[in-house]
Amino acid sequence: MSAPEIEQLIQLLAKLPAFGPRSARRAVLHLLNKKESHFTPLMAAMKNVYDKIVVCPICGNMDTRAPCSICSDTKRNQAQICVVRDVADLWALERSGAFKGCYHVLGGVLSALDGVGPEDLKVQELLDKIAGGGIEEVILALPATVEGQTTAHYLADRLEGYPIKLSALSRGVPIGGELDYLDDGTLQMAFKTRRAV
Amino acid sequence: MSAPEIEQLIQLLAKLPAFGPRSARRAVLHLLNKKESHFTPLMAAMKNVYDKIVVCPICGNMDTRAPCSICSDTKRNQAQICVVRDVADLWALERSGAFKGCYHVLGGVLSALDGVGPEDLKVQELLDKIAGGGIEEVILALPATVEGQTTAHYLADRLEGYPIKLSALSRGVPIGGELDYLDDGTLQMAFKTRRAV
Repeated sequence: MSAPEIEQLIQLLAKLPAFGPRSARRAVLHLLNKKESHFTPLMAAMKNVYDKIVVCPICGNMDTRAPCSICSDTKRNQAQICVVRDVADLWALERSGAFKGCYHVLGGVLSALDGVGPEDLKVQELLDKIAGGGIEEVILALPATVEGQTTAHYLADRLEGYPIKLSALSRGVPIGGELDYLDDGTLQMAFKTRRAV
Repeated sequence: MSAPEIEQLIQLLAKLPAFGPRSARRAVLHLLNKKESHFTPLMAAMKNVYDKIVVCPICGNMDTRAPCSICSDTKRNQAQICVVRDVADLWALERSGAFKGCYHVLGGVLSALDGVGPEDLKVQELLDKIAGGGIEEVILALPATVEGQTTAHYLADRLEGYPIKLSALSRGVPIGGELDYLDDGTLQMAFKTRRAV
């Protein structure tokens, strides 16, 4: 068996998403074989992230500054709030370049199965932010899953009565989508909400 | 886009085997979300491995001590040397518990395609070790691939004339192997080298 130090590192790496014990072992050996060219810079990069990255107290994004670079960017529309499930989804929207407003990270979606209720998510924080004024539009950019849409419905209920425009991402055939590879639900939705050309 | 510190860590993680940019991003977010319970111990375990693990000057194994715990274990048979491609294969054999001798890590296999010649492997070190005396058997435990077997043939040639017993792992149907899932080469080999029952 390999040294306990190595076994412990393999165990911790194996708990990462997309890693298992086998790939973790390969990764550790790879790093030990490329100590100067890969292990050293990886250690430095991890320490950098560990020391410097903080959670933005306004939107929940992760950045080196608090408030984050999005919340503190005066060129972005502070009156538009896009509600996302997590930071990964926030970054995906940023990569798309589709949105120039600000965000609100919920921290998950409602799930009876996983025991996630409204009090486990940043729902009250969203209501407080809107009650604070200055918000014109709230865009729900939640996953198109049962749990994501349950959460969207719940939020729409809670946001009723506030003087804001409420919207959600449109649904349909994705760009490049082959019809015979799409699920029935998407096709039915795309038909029902078909638009005039 | 996320902070440059995070992007740099994602880039370095994505270069690990079994990781890509997408799973690296998920791993970084996972670590940031579980800072106390996972990121902190992972950083400590990495530093531990980085600081303490050295390459054994005798066999090429990786351990906290040099010579490694296998080479310095007097209960193991120092007269038997098992030649393996890399440390991952050495650990696999150790996990199997099949062998109680010592090892010699070649550091790869011969490959015309990848430009790996005998001078890139620890071949001379193996010959020197045998010339030093005290070795009775050399077991070639190289992969059953074209390159692994080319390397085994090459080593058998180079080891001719030395007063040692030379052997190699047996080949055939693996335990639990369904015949109709096995490749033709394995079946042919298993037939050709069939044994009396």
